[in-house]
Amino acid sequence: MLFTWSSFFKKPWNPDGKHCYVTGGSAGLGLALAKLLVTKGAHVSIVARDQGRLDKSLEEMEALRVSPSQILQAKSADLFSASHAKEALEHVCQAHDGQAPDAVFSCAGSSKPMWFVEMTEQDLKEGMDYGYWVQAWTVYAATKMMVRQGKKGAKICMVCSMLGYMSFAGYASYAPPKHALRGLADTLQSELMLYDIGVQIFFPPTIYSPGYENENKSKPDVVKEIEGTDDGLTPDQAAVGMLKGFARGDHHISADLLTDLFRAGTRGSAPRVNFIVEAVYDFISYVGTPIWRRGVDAAIRGHARAHHQYLEDRGFFKI
Amino acid sequence: MLFTWSSFFKKPWNPDGKHCYVTGGSAGLGLALAKLLVTKGAHVSIVARDQGRLDKSLEEMEALRVSPSQILQAKSADLFSASHAKEALEHVCQAHDGQAPDAVFSCAGSSKPMWFVEMTEQDLKEGMDYGYWVQAWTVYAATKMMVRQGKKGAKICMVCSMLGYMSFAGYASYAPPKHALRGLADTLQSELMLYDIGVQIFFPPTIYSPGYENENKSKPDVVKEIEGTDDGLTPDQAAVGMLKGFARGDHHISADLLTDLFRAGTRGSAPRVNFIVEAVYDFISYVGTPIWRRGVDAAIRGHARAHHQYLEDRGFFKI
Repeated sequence: MLFTWSSFFKKPWNPDGKHCYVTGGSAGLGLALAKLLVTKGAHVSIVARDQGRLDKSLEEMEALRVSPSQILQAKSADLFSASHAKEALEHVCQAHDGQAPDAVFSCAGSSKPMWFVEMTEQDLKEGMDYGYWVQAWTVYAATKMMVRQGKKGAKICMVCSMLGYMSFAGYASYAPPKHALRGLADTLQSELMLYDIGVQIFFPPTIYSPGYENENKSKPDVVKEIEGTDDGLTPDQAAVGMLKGFARGDHHISADLLTDLFRAGTRGSAPRVNFIVEAVYDFISYVGTPIWRRGVDAAIRGHARAHHQYLEDRGFFKI
Repeated sequence: MLFTWSSFFKKPWNPDGKHCYVTGGSAGLGLALAKLLVTKGAHVSIVARDQGRLDKSLEEMEALRVSPSQILQAKSADLFSASHAKEALEHVCQAHDGQAPDAVFSCAGSSKPMWFVEMTEQDLKEGMDYGYWVQAWTVYAATKMMVRQGKKGAKICMVCSMLGYMSFAGYASYAPPKHALRGLADTLQSELMLYDIGVQIFFPPTIYSPGYENENKSKPDVVKEIEGTDDGLTPDQAAVGMLKGFARGDHHISADLLTDLFRAGTRGSAPRVNFIVEAVYDFISYVGTPIWRRGVDAAIRGHARAHHQYLEDRGFFKI
């Protein structure tokens, strides 16, 4: 679409009475989104691995219900294969007469930043599992279910990262799967028009969640330094921004200005949200990004000597 | 870098006497590049799976040698794991006293376009293997070898696709790995500054190669229709364009105007090639891409009814 005037007149998507399927729903963004959807009257099913956390999350959701008819469910499953993703989805759909969800929010995932030369084969593979496949298999299962049932108007939303738009040192196991997720979303946004199924993808900046605390454990200091000035969002703030863009129908959803700027400069063939505003953002990002990069490059080059010493201390050169 | 005036004065990289490692070197772009490097005086090692094709390719390379001292090698290997990629690399480096190559050209890969709902779990996994891991493991092995040997000035070049910049219907198993490869290249271009190792990535348009003929077998008709107006390159043309950008030091290499336009509108945080020219391209792509998309969207929506019938004929709805 060239202009989005139509979106001013289009009624935004309303969660009330809809069945929303939320993966990664026991913590961080996923849980915040699940709770937000409950307050808006949706039937919400969350999926995650840890049964203890799921029980606690379901309690929190129950406390927020606005109607006795809302169906709230929690299902423990790992989503790292097509069959597991399908089983979990079909399980929670039993309470809805086997009907596919109206909306799928694929929020599962995690990141482990570290130096490329110190990664093991396992680190790289797990990066793809936790950054890409854990979402791709749910999208795959949900799409097939929706198409088989002819569920027109259904919507699927993935959760990417600013690192699906750009990258820098430290993210060799995370930026590739996040870029891949963006590639999947852009492909399916085009392809699933065949079935009138909407595909959207959210690009959050740093979210101050349990996952973030965890990734900071392995994150090299110079990477923390580069990220130093970034402002993050709380899970609740991110969930509000995500749901707003989702309801509005933005294909690429962002909830902060920095992501808006990177999106404008990394749009590919994705549909625009606002042709005029993004042109301004594109100009700012066109001029600003190389300036930002100068600082990043200088930080990395300045760290080369200390990094060499670090690798030597870790015995990297002794093999 | 804000401007690239420095690149006018910088001497381009010269293959003469360098050891160049080329994966996917027995056909298409890889073979064309290997032969081009031979004519420029490089020591060239090619790797691919099929021994018969390798033998033939090595013969073609031998016929082009410009000096009796050039070391030309062909090694049969599959590159789908870290260990196999490492073995193949170390094997051909024996003839160079165990020294890492001066340049690694990771050209292996293939694509199988089809409808997402008809893909099997295996199709999706193989898409990632053939589009991403087959290159990532070679890059991983080469980087570690170069860093361990302190090989400053070494260069690594991956081969992506226009579908690493954008995507549309039919490429759910190919656009994600190609986007991932771009994410890996952008990460490593930043991170490997620590070791003075250059990382570059080539985005070819359609290449009229054996791989292209193969992918057309599974490609849905409407996808062919969308691609109808694209101009492709022969493997030789693509190899010339790739080597030119590689020698110049472009981080993102393109060899045709259409890719230039998409690159300008999908730059992320990648270093610019030319700040002024790309601003013009960015403007053209900013206005042109939504217009192009209208046509693509119309083609896909117009195909919906026929597609439904096709799925019904294939028994998709009977499960």
